[in-house]
Amino acid sequence: MSVAMNDLGIVKRNIVRADKAAVDRLSRYGVATIHEAMGRVGLMQPYMRPIYAGAHMCGTAVTVLLQPGDNWMLHVAAEQVQPGDVVVAACTVDNTDGFFGDLLATSYRARGAKGLIIDGGVRDVTDLTEMQFPVFSRAISARGTVKATLGSVNIPVVCAGVTVNPGDVVVADMDGVVVVPAGIAHQAADAAEGREANEADKREKLAAGVLGLDMYKMREPLAKAGLKYID
Amino acid sequence: MSVAMNDLGIVKRNIVRADKAAVDRLSRYGVATIHEAMGRVGLMQPYMRPIYAGAHMCGTAVTVLLQPGDNWMLHVAAEQVQPGDVVVAACTVDNTDGFFGDLLATSYRARGAKGLIIDGGVRDVTDLTEMQFPVFSRAISARGTVKATLGSVNIPVVCAGVTVNPGDVVVADMDGVVVVPAGIAHQAADAAEGREANEADKREKLAAGVLGLDMYKMREPLAKAGLKYID
Amino acid sequence: MSVAMNDLGIVKRNIVRADKAAVDRLSRYGVATIHEAMGRVGLMQPYMRPIYAGAHMCGTAVTVLLQPGDNWMLHVAAEQVQPGDVVVAACTVDNTDGFFGDLLATSYRARGAKGLIIDGGVRDVTDLTEMQFPVFSRAISARGTVKATLGSVNIPVVCAGVTVNPGDVVVADMDGVVVVPAGIAHQAADAAEGREANEADKREKLAAGVLGLDMYKMREPLAKAGLKYID
Amino acid sequence: MSVAMNDLGIVKRNIVRADKAAVDRLSRYGVATIHEAMGRVGLMQPYMRPIYAGAHMCGTAVTVLLQPGDNWMLHVAAEQVQPGDVVVAACTVDNTDGFFGDLLATSYRARGAKGLIIDGGVRDVTDLTEMQFPVFSRAISARGTVKATLGSVNIPVVCAGVTVNPGDVVVADMDGVVVVPAGIAHQAADAAEGREANEADKREKLAAGVLGLDMYKMREPLAKAGLKYID
Amino acid sequence: MSVAMNDLGIVKRNIVRADKAAVDRLSRYGVATIHEAMGRVGLMQPYMRPIYAGAHMCGTAVTVLLQPGDNWMLHVAAEQVQPGDVVVAACTVDNTDGFFGDLLATSYRARGAKGLIIDGGVRDVTDLTEMQFPVFSRAISARGTVKATLGSVNIPVVCAGVTVNPGDVVVADMDGVVVVPAGIAHQAADAAEGREANEADKREKLAAGVLGLDMYKMREPLAKAGLKYID
Amino acid sequence: MSVAMNDLGIVKRNIVRADKAAVDRLSRYGVATIHEAMGRVGLMQPYMRPIYAGAHMCGTAVTVLLQPGDNWMLHVAAEQVQPGDVVVAACTVDNTDGFFGDLLATSYRARGAKGLIIDGGVRDVTDLTEMQFPVFSRAISARGTVKATLGSVNIPVVCAGVTVNPGDVVVADMDGVVVVPAGIAHQAADAAEGREANEADKREKLAAGVLGLDMYKMREPLAKAGLKYID
Repeated sequence: MSVAMNDLGIVKRNIVRADKAAVDRLSRYGVATIHEAMGRVGLMQPYMRPIYAGAHMCGTAVTVLLQPGDNWMLHVAAEQVQPGDVVVAACTVDNTDGFFGDLLATSYRARGAKGLIIDGGVRDVTDLTEMQFPVFSRAISARGTVKATLGSVNIPVVCAGVTVNPGDVVVADMDGVVVVPAGIAHQAADAAEGREANEADKREKLAAGVLGLDMYKMREPLAKAGLKYID
Repeated sequence: MSVAMNDLGIVKRNIVRADKAAVDRLSRYGVATIHEAMGRVGLMQPYMRPIYAGAHMCGTAVTVLLQPGDNWMLHVAAEQVQPGDVVVAACTVDNTDGFFGDLLATSYRARGAKGLIIDGGVRDVTDLTEMQFPVFSRAISARGTVKATLGSVNIPVVCAGVTVNPGDVVVADMDGVVVVPAGIAHQAADAAEGREANEADKREKLAAGVLGLDMYKMREPLAKAGLKYID
Repeated sequence: MSVAMNDLGIVKRNIVRADKAAVDRLSRYGVATIHEAMGRVGLMQPYMRPIYAGAHMCGTAVTVLLQPGDNWMLHVAAEQVQPGDVVVAACTVDNTDGFFGDLLATSYRARGAKGLIIDGGVRDVTDLTEMQFPVFSRAISARGTVKATLGSVNIPVVCAGVTVNPGDVVVADMDGVVVVPAGIAHQAADAAEGREANEADKREKLAAGVLGLDMYKMREPLAKAGLKYID
Repeated sequence: MSVAMNDLGIVKRNIVRADKAAVDRLSRYGVATIHEAMGRVGLMQPYMRPIYAGAHMCGTAVTVLLQPGDNWMLHVAAEQVQPGDVVVAACTVDNTDGFFGDLLATSYRARGAKGLIIDGGVRDVTDLTEMQFPVFSRAISARGTVKATLGSVNIPVVCAGVTVNPGDVVVADMDGVVVVPAGIAHQAADAAEGREANEADKREKLAAGVLGLDMYKMREPLAKAGLKYID
Repeated sequence: MSVAMNDLGIVKRNIVRADKAAVDRLSRYGVATIHEAMGRVGLMQPYMRPIYAGAHMCGTAVTVLLQPGDNWMLHVAAEQVQPGDVVVAACTVDNTDGFFGDLLATSYRARGAKGLIIDGGVRDVTDLTEMQFPVFSRAISARGTVKATLGSVNIPVVCAGVTVNPGDVVVADMDGVVVVPAGIAHQAADAAEGREANEADKREKLAAGVLGLDMYKMREPLAKAGLKYID
Repeated sequence: MSVAMNDLGIVKRNIVRADKAAVDRLSRYGVATIHEAMGRVGLMQPYMRPIYAGAHMCGTAVTVLLQPGDNWMLHVAAEQVQPGDVVVAACTVDNTDGFFGDLLATSYRARGAKGLIIDGGVRDVTDLTEMQFPVFSRAISARGTVKATLGSVNIPVVCAGVTVNPGDVVVADMDGVVVVPAGIAHQAADAAEGREANEADKREKLAAGVLGLDMYKMREPLAKAGLKYID
């Protein structure tokens, strides 16, 4: 039976969301910091861009698998959204149609959604910008979609090159989008915290003219690697 | 004789512009709405982007066929511009040169042009932004062009995947660019009006927490299509 | 010996910078004007875009050759920066990693750098925007880099399609990035000056409704080329 | 009514095909020659590539407008194919799905089709190669399509950047695809004939070591343009 | 600890391979048929192309996660290969370096590997073609790689848009690459068998001139959908 | 004066070609081997592909700088070709026009050219394949070019990302194109020789089932890097 074979046509209602405290902790850090803290994994492809300058969000994933040119499942997903969630929509093929606009954003916001990550297109961006409803997408396109073919909600999806499980933490800012598996959210927050600890101190030194070459003690390893200064 | 064969070297002076009342009516709606109202056709490719946030326009097309790296015809087109027109420039090949800058914009504005749609590059974008002269283009590029080879003005062109006839209505906003054939401008405006009619009502309901699933009565067709809820 | 063969692992300390007066003169003109003045050469590919609206810079190049995914040489380059320099970073392969962020920007600014041109990715763009530290890059990406492989500093590099020698003048604005060889900087400034001389006059005429067709005396050459007006 | 507005859902049965003698004449020339003969217009974008080395065809267009992911209209088109036709399929959006395979090719061949030009994907390429059924496409993809949404047959379409009217002559070979409007087919054949006339003579001279510089008398215009020889 | 966080640095030795009988059954069908049989899922992106005409393979996946520019893990993977396996290599970022050449192919073949699927580059393609060692890749590139950073072997990977688990069946031919999860391999083979059942019969009818319109009984649904024939 | 500023309009007649013996030695090795031998530099971008399977060449560069859509300089270059040369053509902008066809190939061959490397388009590929005249290009396109604007011959050019000086050795095969500066041609040949020395021995061992892990003694560094085997 084809549903069993292709995971289409399923809505999972009960998902395990990352611990709220971990989400709060992660919301304090930027995408670059969290991505580094996790060992440089979990970053979506850089074609995922915010629809307005300053867009950012941090929340738990409600995942959606879309069919190309069809936004039916985005409506189905609305019912599964809880306050603090981020909707993460993947598509079975590369597609830039305008799956999402201001009406869906109104509905999502009413349900408590923090924003949308969509590996596809979005429209009504003037309205979405006025609403300050953050969306990170592959494209902006007015092209409309139908409501005719089943996808799924809350199954694992591959979005912009990263596997996202429902309940994972999704953080997005002007640098991109990173996914933190729910099970290691606190661990990632710990590591991010560690990275940020002496950033202020470093910034101050660099601003004062100290070179990274000295601050990070790079001169010796550079010489060992064979770097030569010539005049 | 090659002109007959390739439609190059022609300027058509008398064109039939879409009815002004229809243009006014269409100017009230967004690109997404008009594109939907027309049955999801007429939308240019999503690589056509505004050069500044908030750019938008609605007017009747003066069409231009450019040769790559040559902006001669944009000067020729200026004379054909009437108040309320939008210049729509296609190119015989994919090209990102900077065909258009602030001097041409000054001239076009003096003639009453509403803006420019160009399947090529544009430059002087800082000046154009200050002038608030809206341009939707394939690229931004400082690369200059020559004035050496004939194209045409006011012949049918294919711009970013869409056929544009002189006199057609062109509407552009942050969601993209849509072309409405002159002959169906009122009909398209009617349909757009119909689509917008109860948007406010829908938005209010969705904002109040009503689900699209219920408002659009999707639950039954979804069940029929085989959607399964699991826990 | 491989260093001799591939120019990797070298830092040149003494470079000949373009004459400061020439840099000052060039800083008065836009990229489009300078590119035209040089005979339409020296322009980087249009995929090089500013990370924030309004970014612009003019300075002398400190060049860097990066290895993919490795920003070690950006730290090495900091020491070679003098007030008025622009760091120009190329990479041995196409790469969009986030080589540069707010800490390096802090260090560069402390050294007097005017900005960064990088044929790769950049991150911390929110911070960089707040700092108003101009960067023109191929991509924005949070992806981190290592410090493990030698590149070089102040060797000739090919950045976004253009050869840049250390000391060349680099000018960047919203229209793109242009490189002026140090040896012809004054000559290029002369030519740019010449081009701008009567721009104001032209703009005024065009604003008053004079057609470029008449102002540039194009009607005769157009007729000679065979342009035909039809009704 | 939406059909009137968007030209979808229409099959035109009676089309005026280019004169058969003109098609025969054009079939003797390569795409490059015909494209030149027409004044350098009519060439599809270079992303249209043959699915096997040596594929070529020349015939009259039966045009198809497809919806993305839906090949219903390719079945509808089969009935409109007459011996000597080439099916030219455009799509309302950029799409790489595998719209066409060996069964449709069997049917088209039975109807007398010379081949297929499709601005989309194709599959079963091993079978199509064995059949030596020429296809020029944007992509090869196994992705299947549905039969659910109406497009049209024998309306003007824009395929890979070129407008194709039903009945136009379509010529394809390893260099690409060119479209000759039916009304100028003989004229284009005349011009192609003219171009080929002394090619053999030129080839012989060049093979004997005569330089194009001399054969085409380029030295004087080059000198006039300012070319300088240095040692 | 970073390994736990990012799944890097792990080699899983015992994996559950799809049932050999199921692999044998699936090897009889093309990629297009299997993809359809699974409900149109599991297909890699169409940029994955064979390095020589006629390349095809069917086997069980040994998965590899590569770091950009580093092919160390392809050497580690060799030890995990068993006769009948296909190595499926993903990379943590988009990368086209030449990770694989004729020496690795010699080693893989000695271990019984059927071929390689790699979301990256490959080199020595002349030798690989002579060996008839099938490779499907994102790119061909001579660029060399280092052996410096850990990835993993036999963890779930995302390759060209599809999640591949170790032991899954991978089928590749000129139409692309499809992945069949090990657990549904027989079910997919059943469905593929069903699809092929009367293909020969259909082909014969179509070759005899029967239209798909009639054979598939499309006329009624087309009329219902509103298709109009005009003259 | 613009020629001085932009290096356009110059033909350098006397160039220093790499030592013929070095060229002969390099012609024995593949592109991948030479690129590695040089320390992984000098490789053109992988979009440069041969126009037929098996194309390969090795010779000394006659360089050409083209203007987009203009092949005049390819005619000028013919006169500068000496037996054993390879013409390397760059373009001032990204361009895919068909600059080169069978007539120019006939002329080049008559002059003793080994082949063409062009960062642009090429046409008449069926004829070129029959002639077995090797071309590596960015694109195949029938689009014709004019002879109107000056470029240069035998100046340093940037072709597909690599600086090529006249006289450099250019080697191309199915893996790509690599450039060896004339001054280090013997040194590069030495290094290539060294790399190939025990390839046969390695291949034999790997074919016999020896693992690269053991042959290259990778187990210890892998363990040190933290690789973990799990069951």
